[in-house]
Amino acid sequence: MKHINVLLFDDFTILDALGPAEVLARLKDHYRLDYFSPAGGEITGSANVKINTKPISAIARHDILLVPGGFGTRTLVNDPGFIQALRDLAQKSETVLCVCTGSALLAKTGLLNNVKATSNKIAWDWVTAQNSQVCWIQKARWVADGKFYTASGVSAGIDMALGFVADRFGHDAATEIARSLEYVWNSDKDHDIFG
Amino acid sequence: MKHINVLLFDDFTILDALGPAEVLARLKDHYRLDYFSPAGGEITGSANVKINTKPISAIARHDILLVPGGFGTRTLVNDPGFIQALRDLAQKSETVLCVCTGSALLAKTGLLNNVKATSNKIAWDWVTAQNSQVCWIQKARWVADGKFYTASGVSAGIDMALGFVADRFGHDAATEIARSLEYVWNSDKDHDIFG
Repeated sequence: MKHINVLLFDDFTILDALGPAEVLARLKDHYRLDYFSPAGGEITGSANVKINTKPISAIARHDILLVPGGFGTRTLVNDPGFIQALRDLAQKSETVLCVCTGSALLAKTGLLNNVKATSNKIAWDWVTAQNSQVCWIQKARWVADGKFYTASGVSAGIDMALGFVADRFGHDAATEIARSLEYVWNSDKDHDIFG
Repeated sequence: MKHINVLLFDDFTILDALGPAEVLARLKDHYRLDYFSPAGGEITGSANVKINTKPISAIARHDILLVPGGFGTRTLVNDPGFIQALRDLAQKSETVLCVCTGSALLAKTGLLNNVKATSNKIAWDWVTAQNSQVCWIQKARWVADGKFYTASGVSAGIDMALGFVADRFGHDAATEIARSLEYVWNSDKDHDIFG
């Protein structure tokens, strides 16, 4: 049973985190999901959702890290304590899944240097300005490079999560989850109508 | 400012509720969202998400009610107290948005009798068995009939929420929100590849 650690912060975009979480939770024999924030406690996401989190010091296993984006990233890119904590978590994790402007946070850690990555298209100029040493790919629904998966804006995270499932468990497993969610999967990571 | 009251219960499907919530929250000058459960307190949804809710007695205005589905509905259809509370909320509300097996709960209240509605396709037989007096429409991404909007499985709720925005604010407003979410909107409510 692998642990998926979802890193939350105030003003994160709920669909960035919980779309992929819903996909991955369907593999309930393989994954358990838990929600963390630097200090733990209640986190308020977009749409006024209030989620209880555990402190990141309580993370038991560093298997998969899921990082959403959202307006909260605008201040967090300038928070050295947060970026250092994220760097530490991302380094320890086997796999890092990052959605939307979550890529800005990850870029800021330096761990994406010389790594291919994508992000939200509306916030593109701001995200890519965080670190020019990342190999930013503008036209992609999602990008997988080594242990890093990055998705475009918001709902692209669902497509990426299904792509991750396809990479680990095969295309049929991903298609079956999409069907259970009645989700029309944009399964070609390079086909991006918003890019 | 209209109030959107999201009714949660243990074992609800997070994407059913929070996909539409993310869409509707983008109209921040028009809608505020709050999360309720019969007794208030922490509710655990799918993917182990723990959300803080207020008791339904704290609902200030009955504008729009959003009801998700999920495994929790399997027991709640047989909980007369819950069904009566839902009936009361749905009657008072101007508009009711219902996703996935949330339709089973709403059907149980009797308020969908002689109303056109749809639901999740995998759980179709169980949902429709809850009340044969509903005009169940099997092939639909979502259905709007009077004050009731019902969506098919899980992610169809996002399409329905965009459809609701289109009905109230015009098609361009819905398209703009879809773009901000990089969501490929299935905008034809009658085109249902899962039905």
